[in-house]
Amino acid sequence: MSALKPHPISEPLISAPPPDVLAADANDPLAGFRSRFRLPQGLIYLDGNSLGALPVATPDRLARAAEQEWGESLITSWNVHDWIGAPRRVGDKIARLVGASAGEVIVADSTSVNLFKLLAAAVRHQTGRPVILSESGNFPTDLYMAQGLTEIAPDRRLKTVPADEIVAAIDDDTAVVMLTHVHYKTGRKLDMAAITAAAHAKGALVLWDLSHSVGAVEVGLNRCNADLAVGCGYKYLNGGPGAPAFLFVAERLQGALASPLSGWMGHAQPFAFDDDYRPAPGIDRFACGTPPMLSLLALEQGVDLMLEADPALLAAKAEGLSEQFIEAVLSRCSGLGLTLASPRAFADRGSHVSFAFHDAYALCRALIDRGVIGDFRAPDVVRFGFTPLYNRFVDVWAAGEILADILLSKAWDRPDYRLKARVT
Amino acid sequence: MSALKPHPISEPLISAPPPDVLAADANDPLAGFRSRFRLPQGLIYLDGNSLGALPVATPDRLARAAEQEWGESLITSWNVHDWIGAPRRVGDKIARLVGASAGEVIVADSTSVNLFKLLAAAVRHQTGRPVILSESGNFPTDLYMAQGLTEIAPDRRLKTVPADEIVAAIDDDTAVVMLTHVHYKTGRKLDMAAITAAAHAKGALVLWDLSHSVGAVEVGLNRCNADLAVGCGYKYLNGGPGAPAFLFVAERLQGALASPLSGWMGHAQPFAFDDDYRPAPGIDRFACGTPPMLSLLALEQGVDLMLEADPALLAAKAEGLSEQFIEAVLSRCSGLGLTLASPRAFADRGSHVSFAFHDAYALCRALIDRGVIGDFRAPDVVRFGFTPLYNRFVDVWAAGEILADILLSKAWDRPDYRLKARVT
Repeated sequence: MSALKPHPISEPLISAPPPDVLAADANDPLAGFRSRFRLPQGLIYLDGNSLGALPVATPDRLARAAEQEWGESLITSWNVHDWIGAPRRVGDKIARLVGASAGEVIVADSTSVNLFKLLAAAVRHQTGRPVILSESGNFPTDLYMAQGLTEIAPDRRLKTVPADEIVAAIDDDTAVVMLTHVHYKTGRKLDMAAITAAAHAKGALVLWDLSHSVGAVEVGLNRCNADLAVGCGYKYLNGGPGAPAFLFVAERLQGALASPLSGWMGHAQPFAFDDDYRPAPGIDRFACGTPPMLSLLALEQGVDLMLEADPALLAAKAEGLSEQFIEAVLSRCSGLGLTLASPRAFADRGSHVSFAFHDAYALCRALIDRGVIGDFRAPDVVRFGFTPLYNRFVDVWAAGEILADILLSKAWDRPDYRLKARVT
Repeated sequence: MSALKPHPISEPLISAPPPDVLAADANDPLAGFRSRFRLPQGLIYLDGNSLGALPVATPDRLARAAEQEWGESLITSWNVHDWIGAPRRVGDKIARLVGASAGEVIVADSTSVNLFKLLAAAVRHQTGRPVILSESGNFPTDLYMAQGLTEIAPDRRLKTVPADEIVAAIDDDTAVVMLTHVHYKTGRKLDMAAITAAAHAKGALVLWDLSHSVGAVEVGLNRCNADLAVGCGYKYLNGGPGAPAFLFVAERLQGALASPLSGWMGHAQPFAFDDDYRPAPGIDRFACGTPPMLSLLALEQGVDLMLEADPALLAAKAEGLSEQFIEAVLSRCSGLGLTLASPRAFADRGSHVSFAFHDAYALCRALIDRGVIGDFRAPDVVRFGFTPLYNRFVDVWAAGEILADILLSKAWDRPDYRLKARVT
């Protein structure tokens, strides 16, 4: 894949944006947030659900973390600059974004590792219930981590069923239901409250992956009586590539669950250097090793920025952007081989929208060459993420115009667009 | 703990450095490396074994990673800037520092998490051998991670014995011997070749924690026929606070071992998005989630700098610095309550030296107030790490003078020095 080529959205093939699009931006109460991000001029970045954009404030924060904290205060920064408190501090901030309370969220490790911790803790707690139930086609790493757990805990097994069979499949054998709230590919949003209630009625716990939800759609963990959750820092939270992830354990469950990844940062007294592990009270017990501070402090900048926005306005704009795009594509691109792969109604999806196309990889490459960044997701999906903090209605309109032009002109049909890079 | 107070080493209470100390610095072939680090003026930093200093080049690398790679190239950086190759690329570099081959080391997660992966893989491979054997008083997180594994794999148990009983305790029940090469507290170095041979003779594997070895002492993993190892990026590698860790699996074992933390980055085809986990060939299968790129790229700067130094010169200077310190303390501080807690012979230890003192915490605080940064390690140890890349012989001499002065004047005996911070 070549470097990004910014594409002026006013280039000749695109007509002037229609008045309603311009009006939508002019009336957007979140419009001011765009200038808080560094976005390449002219690029239409619809991939914030894969890697969120760089907040303007983050490079300075990184420089301060490196030059002043690490460089000047060295080891004492763990106290002086409260590095040691960062996983809880940022966790408490994320808690506000997912409808949790302070003390219920901690930042640690990767989403995959956190999922393993909570899944292992949940199945151990659920004595006599051998099944981890999930959705076939769930985000792969979630399924892989569950498979890895069953390899070393052989009395457990992973069972997957299609999403619409999940509730019916929950029974007395179900230890934990592991689901992604907003599906990574289709954007379909599951009913957290209803599935949680159904699971609880059978004595099962539910573990939610919020990677495509947090910062994008309203998440009400405690309102839904949720048990467990994990999520990603580098998508809508704009925490930077591979930003540390977070995990949530409802306060009522914290004392009963223990992480098998019982590292020193989860110990009741990490610096007592005891030979025996004693879990910290509360959410801290789900920390493990020393956190990557530079990446964690960059994440905090993204979270702080997100906390400045009104969640209701974010959700409303997510709906507006994605609805505008779906309507444009359905009206402009019908008969050109594109099929909506996401639920049509915003109530049933997150803030990204996917279309199936027979040569989605080449289409994705053609879009990139025209300055529209989406994601290819194997085997046949092109995915567009709408980030209410920095995407404009005019961006979404231009992306629709460019997509239509590429499809009409068959510009995607080039052999070099089919040469796959390792990551897409 | 208050912020660091740089302390001019030429202050009146200290006499001029003796000629042999000045000559040692003048003749030090590694002397030029000090200017490659940002060290606060006048501070005597003997804590590189807890958090290595900031390389001069790292802030620019971080700025480039954030502003140009993340900010400008956004998601395409995974290919364009080869973020996706970084765990292997930096792993191959670290391999050269630990006597391993390219393709045997990968950077991932934390030391604790990597230890869990390899320990779980090893015990699963060692069918019918229930015991994980370790040293009592090993670094706590290593013991904690093993305990966590036995909680979910209940047919396994952790057995700890004193270091000098390890070899005798290896028997047909031993699945894996888990040891720290250089002890975090005492600095005692175990005989990797001899213990490995003894373990292999009984059919056991050995997992080495190299956190206090890599970059400090010669490590010859393949020369010793080592099986497995993990290590830390934020100590002598100067990778930054909480830098990602690394793991080593001997090429001959890679096909037979599988990580239970089977995340998508360890999949044979991560972007095929299959439901079923298939481990990547080789060392890649021990990766898990998306790596924290900002922290990982900072680590690479530290590793690159370390690779510029001749390992034989590093080891010789580590010996010179630590020997000078031990001799100074033993001659200047005898009868003042300090006891050497490290092996006397350099051949038996790493590049840090510990002394037991009845009020080690207060002594550590008094040293910090005089500009000498060491570490307190519970309950009664003060630890000094000698980093051959940036510590000078004059620093070590001055630290000895200040330590003697504090002990002679009982300057450590202040109530406020006993008020413990959370991290020390």
